[in-house]
Amino acid sequence: MRPPSLNREVRAAIFAGAMIWLALAAAMLVAGAVDAFGGGSGWRDMVLSAGLVTTAAGLVAFSTRGATPPPTQRFGFLVVVTLWTMAPLAATAPFILHGMTPVDALFEATSGLTTTGATVMTGLDTESRAILMWRAIMQWLGGVGILALGLVLLPFLQIGGMQLFSKESSDRSSDKPLPRFASFGRTLLGVYAFATIACAMAYSAVGLSGFDAVAHALTTVSTAGFSTYDASMGHFDSVGPLWVGSFFMLVGSLPFAMYIAFLAGRRPFGIDPQVPLFLTIVAIASVLVIVLRNDVITSRAVAEDVFNVISVITTTGYAASDYTAWGSTPVAIFFLLMFLGGCAGSTTGGVKTYRLLVTGAMLRTHLRRLVMPNAVSLTRYGAREVDPAVFRSALVFLIAFAVSLMALTVALAGTGLDFLTAHTAALTALTNVGPGLGPVIGPAGNFATIPDAAKLLVTLGMILGRLEILPVLVLLLPEFWRR
Amino acid sequence: MRPPSLNREVRAAIFAGAMIWLALAAAMLVAGAVDAFGGGSGWRDMVLSAGLVTTAAGLVAFSTRGATPPPTQRFGFLVVVTLWTMAPLAATAPFILHGMTPVDALFEATSGLTTTGATVMTGLDTESRAILMWRAIMQWLGGVGILALGLVLLPFLQIGGMQLFSKESSDRSSDKPLPRFASFGRTLLGVYAFATIACAMAYSAVGLSGFDAVAHALTTVSTAGFSTYDASMGHFDSVGPLWVGSFFMLVGSLPFAMYIAFLAGRRPFGIDPQVPLFLTIVAIASVLVIVLRNDVITSRAVAEDVFNVISVITTTGYAASDYTAWGSTPVAIFFLLMFLGGCAGSTTGGVKTYRLLVTGAMLRTHLRRLVMPNAVSLTRYGAREVDPAVFRSALVFLIAFAVSLMALTVALAGTGLDFLTAHTAALTALTNVGPGLGPVIGPAGNFATIPDAAKLLVTLGMILGRLEILPVLVLLLPEFWRR
Repeated sequence: MRPPSLNREVRAAIFAGAMIWLALAAAMLVAGAVDAFGGGSGWRDMVLSAGLVTTAAGLVAFSTRGATPPPTQRFGFLVVVTLWTMAPLAATAPFILHGMTPVDALFEATSGLTTTGATVMTGLDTESRAILMWRAIMQWLGGVGILALGLVLLPFLQIGGMQLFSKESSDRSSDKPLPRFASFGRTLLGVYAFATIACAMAYSAVGLSGFDAVAHALTTVSTAGFSTYDASMGHFDSVGPLWVGSFFMLVGSLPFAMYIAFLAGRRPFGIDPQVPLFLTIVAIASVLVIVLRNDVITSRAVAEDVFNVISVITTTGYAASDYTAWGSTPVAIFFLLMFLGGCAGSTTGGVKTYRLLVTGAMLRTHLRRLVMPNAVSLTRYGAREVDPAVFRSALVFLIAFAVSLMALTVALAGTGLDFLTAHTAALTALTNVGPGLGPVIGPAGNFATIPDAAKLLVTLGMILGRLEILPVLVLLLPEFWRR
Repeated sequence: MRPPSLNREVRAAIFAGAMIWLALAAAMLVAGAVDAFGGGSGWRDMVLSAGLVTTAAGLVAFSTRGATPPPTQRFGFLVVVTLWTMAPLAATAPFILHGMTPVDALFEATSGLTTTGATVMTGLDTESRAILMWRAIMQWLGGVGILALGLVLLPFLQIGGMQLFSKESSDRSSDKPLPRFASFGRTLLGVYAFATIACAMAYSAVGLSGFDAVAHALTTVSTAGFSTYDASMGHFDSVGPLWVGSFFMLVGSLPFAMYIAFLAGRRPFGIDPQVPLFLTIVAIASVLVIVLRNDVITSRAVAEDVFNVISVITTTGYAASDYTAWGSTPVAIFFLLMFLGGCAGSTTGGVKTYRLLVTGAMLRTHLRRLVMPNAVSLTRYGAREVDPAVFRSALVFLIAFAVSLMALTVALAGTGLDFLTAHTAALTALTNVGPGLGPVIGPAGNFATIPDAAKLLVTLGMILGRLEILPVLVLLLPEFWRR
């Protein structure tokens, strides 16, 4: 028999999920309003979806209402996993009313909210604006969820070394944590919204229609990757949108805490060391791809190359052109970039730059101690000394990532996908990039043609990746459900 | 200026390499004798090679002679890396005299001594017996080197968690370490030789010629994989050789310390837990491949499937048939098997089963502590409690392995190989399996057609993998060369 406190925690987590459903219903109304404003007819489905989701949320909230449990780790895990599995369910409503199968709808909704950007939809160029705006808004909201995960929840849950960035350790302690916390959240949302508006204005300035500018801004700053065209960013003839997109994808992939510190006139611990490393990797990869894939270097080619590199490393997943046709070295570089991701505390997925730093530091320390057994082992992150447990935690994430990648590859191959498609589908799901490599799910392809079982596996992979895997595994421990 | 002690250590390491050269020269004479006994004419090249190598060894030994330095860690690293880079150089002599290019000869020699089993040679069926026997003997000697690495050197150097299997911790201490050590070495060599003779007799009993039986026995027990036929074990019509090969590859992939303990009537710490896990993985993979790739299950198909699974997981690299043509799931399973390897203290390469156990234990402990922060963290290997540093050391190896795999993949793609070929060439080199996946370097292919730069990169990968990467990286530390 489960102790009542666990029961209360599960109910409270589901209650929180119902609240998210209400927020999604409100977002559906916004998408509907945009459509109605543009003279479309897709808004009816949006209003109906919002009504259905609101009703469901009300019923669920009513049957799980009660006191909020204290913020324990266990409750934290329950909330995180519950929210990210419940939210996509509600987000399917507009797609199902639009005629998609439940599996396709779940794939598209999960890809949206996890800001992956993989799609099963074709014919986007003539698609209802209500659906297009819904896809964009989902991704923008997903970005908010990721910032909350990365800046608050995962550090609190001590997942994957994210505790490096916990507010406790990096800020002066305060005896009023909650008000400070709410103010931090407001500033964060302000920065995110401001960046989105600036991005939309920039897109508009380089020639995009108001609708396209807003839809792409919502999915650029969130490093998410849904476009309103089948050809993604390759749709636009001029290079302006590519450079605007490149810039704002980078904005979305740097640590948002840095912006906030900058606004507050503070520079805690100097520059976060992951930022220069990340930008260096972007620069090197761009130069390599430009040099390796072009016989004649044109301004269009440079814009495409830089855009594609940034799109993949920031786990956005737009495409300016089919980079899988660029020869073997560029493809291998893009394979590597698919792992990397941006900085911790950004909207990106993947391994993330700080884990490269942590891994490098551990490897170096280990090698030094092999030579000089009495050498002092320093675990530093930038100028700061860090508890070795934080470093180990980052390593455990990498192991869990590798094991998940292998398991998902074999499972996807089991649905009949060829090896390259299966392997990169698993990878692109776990890192929330979007497209994979090869003709099927590459930047020129689409997930529409893969079997339903494969779609469900990729959906699972996107959620696993978004939650940095370990919170889901924790729920599989028998110990979690005891006591 | 280098302190004289380092200079002495480097010279002593090179002196040890010259001694290995003498052993290889003797082995060339054996290969030549086999050929002369069979009426061939290839023995002349062997005698000439032996003469050249002996001369070179004499010159090198003369110019580096002197007192042996004390057995420090640093000297250990120098010896290990020097031996495994010098040995392939001498082993190229018969190939170069046979008309191969230096790059091809270095590839074949390194593949032989590291027991990888990748080849650039075609037309083996009509090849000189001297060369065929030399390839087989190299691999058998390489197996001796690997057993020494795994049972003595890597534990002493504390590489990759191999210290789990150090004699110090697993045996009653003795105040006469050296005589005990020599006796252990003799027993080890005796077991290895006995298994090889038994294997040759078994091959002979199922119909192989005396020459084929011996040549294949030498490369079976060493889990090495050079065959005397282009079609590898697929050359034989009957299933007998496949079952004999399967059995003795398994013999070569279990911990040799277990055999010695068994002979001595001891069972220290009960059964090594990696053994049941390894055998379970072999059984599951075999059943999966049998079920997934056959519409009609014949005894030939079962023998081929089991043989191929065991050949890949034990990092032997024989092929009974082209398993890359078996559809997507079997290919993904073989991809996974390429990583695994056999047990620590065997002749196999790869990640090895005990690291799976250690990784699983660390992951579970980490997850438990996320839920119950005060939980005691136990690092157990089987019934034995282990220093957490040993576990971390295994994790660091996995990280170094992953980083090497990625770097080598990109470098190989840079030579023009397609992605699947580049990625699995890097993998098969680092795990010392032999063939990769795909039409170029798969079990039906050959490394002959890849560019010279790619051959050299694969050669480097084979040495890195054989030495479990970290000893090579240690030598790249500036700290190593100071003091």
